[in-house]
Amino acid sequence: MTTTHTAEQIMQHLGEQARAASGTMRMVDTKAKDAALLKAAALLARDKQEIIAANALDMQAGRERGLDAAMLDRLELTAARVEAMALGLEQIASLPDPVGEISDMVFRPSGIQVGHMRVPLGVIGIIYESRPNVTADAAGLCLKSGNAVILRGGSEAIHSNRAIAGILRRALLDSGLPQDAVQLVDSTDRALVGELIRAEKFVDVIIPRGGKSLIERIASEARVPVIKHLDGICHVYVDRAADIRMATDIAVNAKMHRTGVCNAMETLLVHADVAAEFLPQAAAALSAAGAGLRGCERSCELVPGMQVATEADWDTEYLDAVLAVRVVDDLDAAIAHIAEHGSGHTESIITADYDTGMRFLREVDSASVMWNASTRFADGFEYGLGAEIGISTDRLHVRGPVGLEGLTTQKWIVLGHGEVRS
Amino acid sequence: MTTTHTAEQIMQHLGEQARAASGTMRMVDTKAKDAALLKAAALLARDKQEIIAANALDMQAGRERGLDAAMLDRLELTAARVEAMALGLEQIASLPDPVGEISDMVFRPSGIQVGHMRVPLGVIGIIYESRPNVTADAAGLCLKSGNAVILRGGSEAIHSNRAIAGILRRALLDSGLPQDAVQLVDSTDRALVGELIRAEKFVDVIIPRGGKSLIERIASEARVPVIKHLDGICHVYVDRAADIRMATDIAVNAKMHRTGVCNAMETLLVHADVAAEFLPQAAAALSAAGAGLRGCERSCELVPGMQVATEADWDTEYLDAVLAVRVVDDLDAAIAHIAEHGSGHTESIITADYDTGMRFLREVDSASVMWNASTRFADGFEYGLGAEIGISTDRLHVRGPVGLEGLTTQKWIVLGHGEVRS
Repeated sequence: MTTTHTAEQIMQHLGEQARAASGTMRMVDTKAKDAALLKAAALLARDKQEIIAANALDMQAGRERGLDAAMLDRLELTAARVEAMALGLEQIASLPDPVGEISDMVFRPSGIQVGHMRVPLGVIGIIYESRPNVTADAAGLCLKSGNAVILRGGSEAIHSNRAIAGILRRALLDSGLPQDAVQLVDSTDRALVGELIRAEKFVDVIIPRGGKSLIERIASEARVPVIKHLDGICHVYVDRAADIRMATDIAVNAKMHRTGVCNAMETLLVHADVAAEFLPQAAAALSAAGAGLRGCERSCELVPGMQVATEADWDTEYLDAVLAVRVVDDLDAAIAHIAEHGSGHTESIITADYDTGMRFLREVDSASVMWNASTRFADGFEYGLGAEIGISTDRLHVRGPVGLEGLTTQKWIVLGHGEVRS
Repeated sequence: MTTTHTAEQIMQHLGEQARAASGTMRMVDTKAKDAALLKAAALLARDKQEIIAANALDMQAGRERGLDAAMLDRLELTAARVEAMALGLEQIASLPDPVGEISDMVFRPSGIQVGHMRVPLGVIGIIYESRPNVTADAAGLCLKSGNAVILRGGSEAIHSNRAIAGILRRALLDSGLPQDAVQLVDSTDRALVGELIRAEKFVDVIIPRGGKSLIERIASEARVPVIKHLDGICHVYVDRAADIRMATDIAVNAKMHRTGVCNAMETLLVHADVAAEFLPQAAAALSAAGAGLRGCERSCELVPGMQVATEADWDTEYLDAVLAVRVVDDLDAAIAHIAEHGSGHTESIITADYDTGMRFLREVDSASVMWNASTRFADGFEYGLGAEIGISTDRLHVRGPVGLEGLTTQKWIVLGHGEVRS
């Protein structure tokens, strides 16, 4: 075709195809979906070189555009990374299928039996930035949960994404499923993002993956519901009744296991009664692990040489080997600090005291609230979801790690015997 | 104060108060919430005359503004209606409290134990039209579920709503709870609706109750997530394997039990193989009950004198004693008709055949899908929710009747023993 299409026309076309594919996908049985996932994994492994060649074009363009080393690393696909994508699809194939699950069927006084059946959301739009592996991971999760997906990856990864999406579509076709269950917005025109997030008629939910500013902009402009994945300013609170050894181990793990992730600890809160005992040894362990500490006045008194924190530190997601440290008077002060400065992602208390731990569990209003565990466990795999498409910081529909179930919804089903309402 | 405040300032003030009250309410125990509900019920009963006097001002103004009889009826509060409101609050007090429920706690290979805790949504905005009883019902459900609520009722009911909200606030105060857990937008300025639905910082969800155009306008302009309650174009499909007597009884009940409600049947679909047997007797029973029928060509051949339906009939929510009737070739045609013309609210199949019934349950994508039961059962009380704040036609968060659970969300909780991630 030689006609030029507007962004609106392109999205209309993608949307109609996705809606039609969704109508088929929601009825497809588990066996057929798993066969398509395994087929896609096999094709990814077989056509590895083809994908790496496409990725080389993106890498070349990225270098020419002056992308920094971290961005180029996220963009790069090696043989091992393509194999990891294939393995990811195999793992998704091995997960239980949530679609069709019937639960809670209870008899009511009228005689009807009422409960739920789990069904796909419909059409999911994924907007993401540089990592091309999201193309396979997100599409795999949407496919397994019976949804159709419209993928909009970063422009810097367009060749890689095109190659991966092409393989997924081929696998669907080879498996007798509608290939439009996976569609890539094959254009770097930014107007298409605007169309996608306003395509209420065709898209049931938007999941943006990327930096805070991208997600906030999408959420503010979208007409389609958005499942947001905002920042993680996660806290560990070391209570008066904490096991000091445990608290130190968890602090080091929560901060230093991986620093560039949303479930890493950014602020360590310490009860005043144990600060003198805990902080010097925790600071030594954290420093030995490579963390730079920024403390409140009281912390600095206990740990000579510690950098003084400013007010801005309490609100910063470092995503780096940096940790803010604050001594608090009691549990109430810890909870108040979290309520004021936290992002509602993940917080953990270290305590051996029942009442204190229960209060923390109940009163801290975050997607994940932990007791004697590292914040790094806030993760779909660790929670047993098998995989995750992200970690929701929203309140409605799904909070925290989002797996297959978060990509579905429940309808009511009623089994009757001729009942009428009187 | 003599200062005039802008809509934005008023909403900022209401929002800050609601947010603060929500922080208290989410921690309040069941006993205290129930005591406040029972106190409110007692005050409603005691101050009945005061409420009726306030309502008389609205009725007077309504008559002067030329409201029609149906609207005046919806607006009117009698002693019996105030008592029904009080009884409603007592019933809400008797329901189990969903807040704090812990479920699905499973051990993971890492050693942590992971599951969910149910928590309030936070601040809920309710926008509704003429019925003043919504003030008590909605506030009661929000209170019991640990939320704060901002109520914006119809301007024609402002005096009634002010009196009822005043009593609820007095009951909260008398019970030692924050009275700002229930706030009324005490102004008829429409700009305040615009502020309320864009107050992302203060409001977690908007639930609009009213006509389709109101809800669509709110949904399109809102920045806060909206739980929509749109129209109910509900279908009953009488299959070839239906018990004809049962199908007739259900058709009459689904259409004529109450006609002005969203779960009433609007279109009857009949399998061609049983149309000749079923339709004449169903038409007779429906006509005897007062229904006016509009049939497709094939229906009209079987029921002499039936009015001919137009294409528009398939897409109409009559909310009246009118029924569209269509003969279809088979289950596929019935499902296709529902997919094209239904509103995703409630559909029912009448059949004694297992495969046919199971296909209908699975393939019809509505909030409630029934088998051998009247669509009129799509209701929070009938489903065992104890009460309902509405019937969601959305896909995310909650579908169908919305009770206390729909006003809550789940956070993840993790119980550890010092686990760190390796």
